[in-house]
Amino acid sequence: MIERRWRVAAMPEEQLDSSHFELVTAERPEVLDGQVGCRVLWISIDAAQRAWFQGVSYRDALHIGDTMPAFSIGQVVESRSGDFVPGDIVSGHLGWQDYSVVDADELTRIEVKAPLSRYLSVLGITGLTAYFGLFAVGEAKPGETVVVSGAAGATGSLVGQMAKLRGCRVVGICGSTEKQEWLTSKLGFDAAVNYRDENFRAALKQACPDGIDVFFDNVGGTTLDVALSRMAHRGRIVCCGVVSQYDTTTPSRGARGVPGILIGKSITMRGFLYTDYVERSDEAMQALQGWIEEGTLIVAEDILEGLEKAPQGLIGVLNGTNVGKQLIHVADPS
Amino acid sequence: MIERRWRVAAMPEEQLDSSHFELVTAERPEVLDGQVGCRVLWISIDAAQRAWFQGVSYRDALHIGDTMPAFSIGQVVESRSGDFVPGDIVSGHLGWQDYSVVDADELTRIEVKAPLSRYLSVLGITGLTAYFGLFAVGEAKPGETVVVSGAAGATGSLVGQMAKLRGCRVVGICGSTEKQEWLTSKLGFDAAVNYRDENFRAALKQACPDGIDVFFDNVGGTTLDVALSRMAHRGRIVCCGVVSQYDTTTPSRGARGVPGILIGKSITMRGFLYTDYVERSDEAMQALQGWIEEGTLIVAEDILEGLEKAPQGLIGVLNGTNVGKQLIHVADPS
Repeated sequence: MIERRWRVAAMPEEQLDSSHFELVTAERPEVLDGQVGCRVLWISIDAAQRAWFQGVSYRDALHIGDTMPAFSIGQVVESRSGDFVPGDIVSGHLGWQDYSVVDADELTRIEVKAPLSRYLSVLGITGLTAYFGLFAVGEAKPGETVVVSGAAGATGSLVGQMAKLRGCRVVGICGSTEKQEWLTSKLGFDAAVNYRDENFRAALKQACPDGIDVFFDNVGGTTLDVALSRMAHRGRIVCCGVVSQYDTTTPSRGARGVPGILIGKSITMRGFLYTDYVERSDEAMQALQGWIEEGTLIVAEDILEGLEKAPQGLIGVLNGTNVGKQLIHVADPS
Repeated sequence: MIERRWRVAAMPEEQLDSSHFELVTAERPEVLDGQVGCRVLWISIDAAQRAWFQGVSYRDALHIGDTMPAFSIGQVVESRSGDFVPGDIVSGHLGWQDYSVVDADELTRIEVKAPLSRYLSVLGITGLTAYFGLFAVGEAKPGETVVVSGAAGATGSLVGQMAKLRGCRVVGICGSTEKQEWLTSKLGFDAAVNYRDENFRAALKQACPDGIDVFFDNVGGTTLDVALSRMAHRGRIVCCGVVSQYDTTTPSRGARGVPGILIGKSITMRGFLYTDYVERSDEAMQALQGWIEEGTLIVAEDILEGLEKAPQGLIGVLNGTNVGKQLIHVADPS
């Protein structure tokens, strides 16, 4: 049986474009002992996928010829493991392809209680990242001012809403007037500012008259520099992503004023991955599930249809064209 | 009565030198109601005094004509406050001068149980900064690798010794072979590396084969960049000072790889002032006093004699000529 996969055709030097990928076909690979063969149903598109080309991250760097990796939802078609049977819905690193053969111990079975796409957004890594980043890393408290960059993105849109639920004042940083409008009118943000505006610095200052207690940063670069200059005493910066610096081979020199500003205002900057808080996963999932059921958390998913759209999805995320979680819908479960 | 004081004669553009100060004399100022007049006995010299010229810190910027400020030990000569009587030994911001008139509520009485200089070193701000930075901010644990920059300086020399007392492996970063020798043979550091050496990066790597769990940074600049690249997963960077960037009007762009490295390794960078932990002062003072009495903590003080040496002292600290805490001995108590 012939299946499709996206492989790396060239290493990007500057901005990623479609020429860096090629869609190839091959015989479905054999499932070996201890492995599982899955049909890929949904693919998560994350800005970090661009960073994997840079070779500096929490995973191995990409090389030409590699199948493009991605966290995904799949359905087991063939199992040579005692842990899975055909029909099981699973999550794991299945990649940008129709069919994936992976070691059974790299898969997690999903007890499906919600639309499948949710397990890549609010009930998946994105939701856990937002939850742990805001509460465990950022220690957001009622009454505090929380600013989130990439506010209309997958993680940012959840962070802002959760901060509102916690009783914080919430300011979003995004890249268009449409997104500003969406954040304040639909998601309940107290204010939203546009980093592309000439008066961005002044607008952020006006939106945060008492300074920033928690800055949840998905973006880095100049946005981080500006936010650093507005931090309140004992403020916390949650370092979640650096999307402004992924789509280049010459990332910026570093965060301006670090460490001087950190000392002058007793500020904490902390990087994290959701896996750092794996022992609190149940707590987080219960909270997230509860908010979804109550309808207090709006889940924004930006869905592209078809495996062939995967590169377009990633390029869009890097340029900020998506609203909410960017997903690729590949197939429905049987 | 005529008294001497050092005032700011010019604002430094690049490196501080003696032309930026002038020693002037004037009539002893009158003590007003609620104020106290003190003879200055000991002056603390701190690299941060250079940063005060830059205008970016936790205190107001300096201006031409200002008496050079400094934390000091004095003896009350005249009191128009019910809280102090002549003869009291006090600490406070008395400045680079023979005689200082300050508001009584800005002074702290010292119950003298040790040589007076100790209250500006191990039993003063320096000791508290080292203690809280290492244990409260850095959360150093037995068996961890602690690296301290400015290791032969006032704070660094205490940090390294305290980390050894806690059971850590300790590596010092300093600027001369003499200091390396002193750190390892006299203070018990496990290793010391010289940031001026060509092979500094390789030497630090060799000294920290498992990475750095706690980096206590007094220096910033390139030293911080190099240490960042060697941090262990979940490492902590204690941002205490940026001495490499004080003696210039064009400080470096920022810490390289921040926030990317912080995310990839779940690293925390935290700035602080000892005052953030004022509620734990008793605990810290008891510990410090205990170590001094046991003789387990070697206190290094680098003493210059005479108020006229104050500029030389500060210039020396910025160039790293001092070993241990730089102090100016102005007068003895009556």
